Amino acid sequence: MKLTTFSDYTLRVLMFLAVERGRLATIPEIAAAYGISENHLMKVVHQLVRGGLVESVRGKGGGIRLACAPETIRLGAVVRASEGAAPIVECLSGEPGACCIAPVCRLTAVLVKAFEALYSTLDDYTLADLVAQPQSLQAILIRQT
Amino acid sequence: MKLTTFSDYTLRVLMFLAVERGRLATIPEIAAAYGISENHLMKVVHQLVRGGLVESVRGKGGGIRLACAPETIRLGAVVRASEGAAPIVECLSGEPGACCIAPVCRLTAVLVKAFEALYSTLDDYTLADLVAQPQSLQAILIRQT
Repeated sequence: MKLTTFSDYTLRVLMFLAVERGRLATIPEIAAAYGISENHLMKVVHQLVRGGLVESVRGKGGGIRLACAPETIRLGAVVRASEGAAPIVECLSGEPGACCIAPVCRLTAVLVKAFEALYSTLDDYTLADLVAQPQSLQAILIRQT
Repeated sequence: MKLTTFSDYTLRVLMFLAVERGRLATIPEIAAAYGISENHLMKVVHQLVRGGLVESVRGKGGGIRLACAPETIRLGAVVRASEGAAPIVECLSGEPGACCIAPVCRLTAVLVKAFEALYSTLDDYTLADLVAQPQSLQAILIRQT
């Protein structure tokens, strides 16, 4: 059970943009800072723009930036969106024949409750909490680019 | 983010053994009931036996059964054991260069706390809760074998 790479990268992009507020950042720059693929990041940024957390400025000197204050971005909401509709267990995939006991299984309700607790805990934190002392984070990220 | 197949199968084996208490079950029978691979189940059962939740009786007419009462088997403990030491996010894998900001990252502590909340919620339930009305479960499982 682990965070998907998509969620992991989503959070990393948001953290980068939070420590680099006040200027436009670029995907190649963020990819270089973390040493990860630009292609992966493009999909992540696309979803963040679509979800309204990030805004994109086109043209020469363009780039991306946070569309709202880090204090307003709850981590549970971010991860819920980046994890999307993927089932938390195979039998919830809705595919016929996935698990024969699905119609009477009590486990799925317990799992849904447990994942709710996970997201609810994440919602206790905002993006601002992750970058409360941005200097050390900034020093590492900018060193890499 | 989803339960690993290993955890999913672990819980299914335990549920089967809980509804079929009082007799020895076999791996081929459980595999047939759920329509899943015997090979996968062998690894799952091996770990359950090693962890003391299931006991194995060798020889002709042998098989496996729960080693303790379903009321004493907490789901959080089961899933913690079956998920093992796999990192909840890539940067916790400990591999060098996994994520450059790992040394100063506040996200990992938040994620650890969120997964703790998930396991703690699972620990509110025991295997007995999953098989509180075993007849319908039993009817499906035995029909498949």
